[in-house]
Amino acid sequence: MKNIIIVLVLFSFIFLPSRGAAQDENQTVIQSIFDNALSTDIAYKQLEKLCKEAPGRLIGTPNSFKSVGLMKEYLTNLGADTVFLQSFTSPAWICHSAFLTMTIDGKEIPLQVDALGPCGSTPLPGIHAEIIEVMSLDEVRELGKEKIEGKIVFFNRPMNTTYFNVFKAYSEAVDQRYWGPSLAQEYGAVGSITRSANPNMDDFPHTGSCRMEGNKIPAIAISTNDAEKLSKVLKSNPQLKVNIQVDAEDITTQSYNLIADLKGSEKPNEYIIVAGHLDAWHNTEGAHDDGVGCLQSTEVLRLFKQLGLNNKRSIRVILYMDEELYQSGGNAYVVYSKEQQVMNYFAIESDAGGFSPRFFSVDAPDIVLEKIKKYESFLKPYGIEEITAGGSGVDIGPMKELGVPLSGYRTDWQRYFDMHHSANDTFDQVNFREMQLGSGAMASFVYLIDKYDLANQN
Amino acid sequence: MKNIIIVLVLFSFIFLPSRGAAQDENQTVIQSIFDNALSTDIAYKQLEKLCKEAPGRLIGTPNSFKSVGLMKEYLTNLGADTVFLQSFTSPAWICHSAFLTMTIDGKEIPLQVDALGPCGSTPLPGIHAEIIEVMSLDEVRELGKEKIEGKIVFFNRPMNTTYFNVFKAYSEAVDQRYWGPSLAQEYGAVGSITRSANPNMDDFPHTGSCRMEGNKIPAIAISTNDAEKLSKVLKSNPQLKVNIQVDAEDITTQSYNLIADLKGSEKPNEYIIVAGHLDAWHNTEGAHDDGVGCLQSTEVLRLFKQLGLNNKRSIRVILYMDEELYQSGGNAYVVYSKEQQVMNYFAIESDAGGFSPRFFSVDAPDIVLEKIKKYESFLKPYGIEEITAGGSGVDIGPMKELGVPLSGYRTDWQRYFDMHHSANDTFDQVNFREMQLGSGAMASFVYLIDKYDLANQN
Repeated sequence: MKNIIIVLVLFSFIFLPSRGAAQDENQTVIQSIFDNALSTDIAYKQLEKLCKEAPGRLIGTPNSFKSVGLMKEYLTNLGADTVFLQSFTSPAWICHSAFLTMTIDGKEIPLQVDALGPCGSTPLPGIHAEIIEVMSLDEVRELGKEKIEGKIVFFNRPMNTTYFNVFKAYSEAVDQRYWGPSLAQEYGAVGSITRSANPNMDDFPHTGSCRMEGNKIPAIAISTNDAEKLSKVLKSNPQLKVNIQVDAEDITTQSYNLIADLKGSEKPNEYIIVAGHLDAWHNTEGAHDDGVGCLQSTEVLRLFKQLGLNNKRSIRVILYMDEELYQSGGNAYVVYSKEQQVMNYFAIESDAGGFSPRFFSVDAPDIVLEKIKKYESFLKPYGIEEITAGGSGVDIGPMKELGVPLSGYRTDWQRYFDMHHSANDTFDQVNFREMQLGSGAMASFVYLIDKYDLANQN
Repeated sequence: MKNIIIVLVLFSFIFLPSRGAAQDENQTVIQSIFDNALSTDIAYKQLEKLCKEAPGRLIGTPNSFKSVGLMKEYLTNLGADTVFLQSFTSPAWICHSAFLTMTIDGKEIPLQVDALGPCGSTPLPGIHAEIIEVMSLDEVRELGKEKIEGKIVFFNRPMNTTYFNVFKAYSEAVDQRYWGPSLAQEYGAVGSITRSANPNMDDFPHTGSCRMEGNKIPAIAISTNDAEKLSKVLKSNPQLKVNIQVDAEDITTQSYNLIADLKGSEKPNEYIIVAGHLDAWHNTEGAHDDGVGCLQSTEVLRLFKQLGLNNKRSIRVILYMDEELYQSGGNAYVVYSKEQQVMNYFAIESDAGGFSPRFFSVDAPDIVLEKIKKYESFLKPYGIEEITAGGSGVDIGPMKELGVPLSGYRTDWQRYFDMHHSANDTFDQVNFREMQLGSGAMASFVYLIDKYDLANQN
């Protein structure tokens, strides 16, 4: 694309906001929000710091505590009126190592794997066993205890990458990861291997949570390339034995949600919650999931303060701990809200990666949604196509029982599962503009929520 | 983001197409197009080949001819009914090298630069001259000949990165690159340096076209980092002399648009044009600009053929040559169309990078646009927000004089100018899904255009 004179004529119609007299104030404020968000890199630099200095921030790990400290200092320096740790006790799971090797012609070949949380450990030398490859949970049930017992179950159904909605592809594939290990255990398996929920063929194992209880077996994710390699070897050598080794421990830990408030001018006891989650899997910098969501949330506070937007209600940033394993932080905040009689007026979470904005979804009564939908016209010039009924976020979800209207920030997430829960989810995969358009969209949305009263809420 | 059970409930509402009885056939076909596009990587692999084996494909260069050959073979193998070269003669500009050095404390420091096309050359040892830094074209006019003569003009106004529409930021900055060198020349400058039109601070010079005639002076782009560095040095040392060296030549060349047809079943003499441009600047693989557009165009042909979509009209893929410098290919096809009395029924170009789909813009009479807008509902489930009035593409633009309805494929291009016209525009910056969503969107759009007659067209 070249000649600017030609091209400007061709393209200049796109995205330019239309103006009506009554809308001017909102448009001016929202433009000032985006102007600032797109020209200020403090959050982007802090994201880099968080990713590089405190990767692998699962609850209970040293880096989870470090990340709370890093972000507490950051929020204090931003000038939040109050910054505090909301403490709770939670189970946690610490992963030290995970290995899978296959021996072919006397040569031991390591495969790219990582442990699923919170799986069980193996004895130190690992477990040596045959593999049985399956494509579904049902196949395990059909094979029954006789065929499964004493073996390692290998769930190898690929993601269906033909959907436009890559999250749908993820959700269809990931039953193997979430329910597979416990099902295998129920049928007497000694271990479980799950193909990574990754739309691409590459060498990154993608971990994630599995539902496990009791005498837990080791459970690992394998990279898509090595899933294919292992499957191929099994076809010519069905009796192949592999060695699986996992070293992990279950502990109980004290942990914290990090909370920062910017006091409201008229209704300081009503809180608009803006949230992300600080924890990230042990194998990743957790840039898109969910360092970005944390920094976009802090940006809402920073933008309100720096631009003097004079929020009527208090804006409360919550950087939750433990979205990934037990959702302890989300649940603990609800307990805390009940105990302290906190008036949570509205909550929004960013946990869909640092990609271009596309939607806000709202989980609230129709009458509230209809009111909020009226904000669409102000946000459309900045890439928000629609405000639509839908879910919110895993951390704020528990607030639904309190009657709080909830919202989720939704992105153009076609690249999300390329990186999700893997060592590929790094700071350098986050584009400054795409992240900051999200910060601007969230701050603008919160500005409108705060300015206009929600109908019949709570 | 974790627990799939929770998350599926929260998110599954997004993007799922709604179905009405009358729409079923279109929806089924369009779904089959996306199913195929998202699970077939032949175009993505060919993009890699094009980028790696024939980077720097400016018209007249060896790699421009090589790229035509590579893509001709590819289109033939795809099973196009006809593949041919549409030949024309054009001016061309071949860049051999460009350097800029500043000498500080006796030490020669090279800066990251590249030549703008089609600028002039320097004598072999380069030109040694003082620099005068300006922020606008007007500043050159105000300074006048007295201050400019014998110097190198350094245009250093940064992009305004606060706009949502990054293209607007580009278009506002790039007058310095397009008109700056000739204006500097007019006022007696011996050379011109322009800050790269890049929203980021980094080391990539971003080249591009400039309007130059006569006894052309050397004109270069400098990386944003080095623009800052140079500016800083000039503040403490305004008499700094730099050495600018450009080795380039103007030639006349035979060149080619590459054309491939898939014959229509009912109206084979009416052509629906699907286009990208093969040429790319001398410093780049030209992945997003516009290798992607070429491969998305070939995908339309492949999808129609492979899925047996039975196009009524002929689908004509045109991979244009020389979008970047003189638009010779686009103009030559119009000449050819007149000579051969080609009935071009509709034309669409992809030249906005391989990012997620967002719009189709249409440059046609209102009555045609209104008809085409009715397709929106079929495309919305695949990320096309809107079909809207607007421009098309630089290569197909000249067809407007023939009365052809034109369209441009529009993307979520927030990352575009990070790479545009620089060595950073590489294959690995293209995401498979994002590119192929564009292929699917274009094929689906063409399917609808072919199926329903356009009102009052031509």
